[in-house]
Amino acid sequence: MEKITLAHGSGGTLMHGLIDSTMIRKLDNPILRQKKDSAILRIGKARIAFTTDSYVVSPIFFPGGDIGSLAVHGTVNDLSVCGARPLFLSLGLIIEEGLDKNILDKVIRSAGEAAGRAGVDIVTGDTKVVERGACDKIFINTSGVGDVYYEKLSVSEIRPGDVIIASGTIGEHARAILSQREGIEFGSGIKTDSAPLNKLIRKVFSASDKVRFMRDPTRGGVATTLNEITASRPFGICLEERAIPVSNGVRQACELLGFDPLYLACEGRFLMVVGRKDAAGVLNVIRGDSCGKKAAIIGEVTKEHKGRVYLNTAAGGKRLVDMLSGEQLPRIC
Amino acid sequence: MEKITLAHGSGGTLMHGLIDSTMIRKLDNPILRQKKDSAILRIGKARIAFTTDSYVVSPIFFPGGDIGSLAVHGTVNDLSVCGARPLFLSLGLIIEEGLDKNILDKVIRSAGEAAGRAGVDIVTGDTKVVERGACDKIFINTSGVGDVYYEKLSVSEIRPGDVIIASGTIGEHARAILSQREGIEFGSGIKTDSAPLNKLIRKVFSASDKVRFMRDPTRGGVATTLNEITASRPFGICLEERAIPVSNGVRQACELLGFDPLYLACEGRFLMVVGRKDAAGVLNVIRGDSCGKKAAIIGEVTKEHKGRVYLNTAAGGKRLVDMLSGEQLPRIC
Repeated sequence: MEKITLAHGSGGTLMHGLIDSTMIRKLDNPILRQKKDSAILRIGKARIAFTTDSYVVSPIFFPGGDIGSLAVHGTVNDLSVCGARPLFLSLGLIIEEGLDKNILDKVIRSAGEAAGRAGVDIVTGDTKVVERGACDKIFINTSGVGDVYYEKLSVSEIRPGDVIIASGTIGEHARAILSQREGIEFGSGIKTDSAPLNKLIRKVFSASDKVRFMRDPTRGGVATTLNEITASRPFGICLEERAIPVSNGVRQACELLGFDPLYLACEGRFLMVVGRKDAAGVLNVIRGDSCGKKAAIIGEVTKEHKGRVYLNTAAGGKRLVDMLSGEQLPRIC
Repeated sequence: MEKITLAHGSGGTLMHGLIDSTMIRKLDNPILRQKKDSAILRIGKARIAFTTDSYVVSPIFFPGGDIGSLAVHGTVNDLSVCGARPLFLSLGLIIEEGLDKNILDKVIRSAGEAAGRAGVDIVTGDTKVVERGACDKIFINTSGVGDVYYEKLSVSEIRPGDVIIASGTIGEHARAILSQREGIEFGSGIKTDSAPLNKLIRKVFSASDKVRFMRDPTRGGVATTLNEITASRPFGICLEERAIPVSNGVRQACELLGFDPLYLACEGRFLMVVGRKDAAGVLNVIRGDSCGKKAAIIGEVTKEHKGRVYLNTAAGGKRLVDMLSGEQLPRIC
């Protein structure tokens, strides 16, 4: 009998298989089939984006953040990368009996402060408590709604020659979790990248109408997100390893633990596909924002390698970059 | 150091205290302060209801339902009792590593069928898998959005003389869970009352414009829900014990286990406050629906007993009915 494994929650191939075989088949409808970070809905005359994420990160406090702020940022970002202005969030708590009330208070305060910084309101909630051992400390679901103001984002808008931009160094969130979990420093300045991207993304959309598509590379990292974009499409993506912003700390953690930075989760970065002519201008806009100082053009969309992602390595070679298979870091978010 | 207890998730006094002291204080905004089952939002010209609920029910399969259908019905009902037409749902899964894939399939199929019957689409989702022992089998968060079509619902519309209607027998959901958990039959025909109420409620709103307020008596049951309505208000509620629809099976379960039916959760019933002149007509409409056959007028709003709920007992006495304190049935939903 087939069992659910940690890899089914990895963001990678097994999770995609599960979503296709179970969720999409059994709940079939055209909106779900789009598999976007947010569903785009029409209610009356309004165009609404609607998204959900559950957070089970362990530990619940880590350098630069905690499960409360992470849950707010994650949902704010899922709305933002779909061209929506995040407006309202829900907060669903599942708490283990025996949790210190002051830990709960700290998490909720952090969620509230994160919402304040992002300019969204947490307007509805739910609290469940389960007996000791039935959940691990606290899980948070944040769902969110926003109004869609940039309607052109679609994978089908992507053309060979378009440029891939990463909004900053990759894998910092994974490094922060690993550092906390393993008790290893991995260089200085360890902090999750978890941050709300809505204000930065709004600036980008003001600067260019040639943004084809955006997504935030969370579980499964840059490699998995780009594979989601190219899957079954009439184009490929080719990355330049030298151009990909990776901090020394992330590099060190990867060397020590045998990870590839391309598969490490970010929680405050986006990947963007933009028309080549607009790329330099957009890059400048991103770099002008505190969340985007290390942004870089990391690759391009190609006619070749349809459906695939390739990497020109720093050593001068070329290799296929697959979607994450298996699970490398459970409970990263 | 104060610890979170099961009673903090009961729906009763401790949960209300926690929500007031932690959630509302730390996340303060006017919409959250309304403490409605759904937040009522304005986005552009649309009036949108938005709600969230996490489901941790144990066992996950029980007579007449399972965690999948329950999660859909619960969110459909939370939107409906706020005067909204439920349109779109999200589905956030937290799954324990090792769960049989066919159990997951069964739960998702059930959620999909429940959505189909209610006429809503599940349009976005999220899947997390945690290691064995970090959650109990599967937890589901459903959030939902709908468009508000009946705008008058407000506790402040309630007047002495108004009538309280229950849409059916109370406590059947709790009986079904108890029966499954304890392995006791408690009479025949054991089945959760879990059902989508949106179509029935729509009929009610078509029949009367004197519906003051509605709520579904889930955790904490009828007693807790009515206390939420009267709390700090310039009116009381007086119930007639003889008029409250309680099945023999629920009565038997309560006698055996020492519960009071007024505190048992329903998942497919609503309580309604309606103007006296419209009460008989509305009751007929409800009884004409398959979900409302046993509906009854169970009490009235009074000038006396401000802020309190009283019960005229079948034995001829009168007693105060408080909000649930403590926890009687953890993980009922």
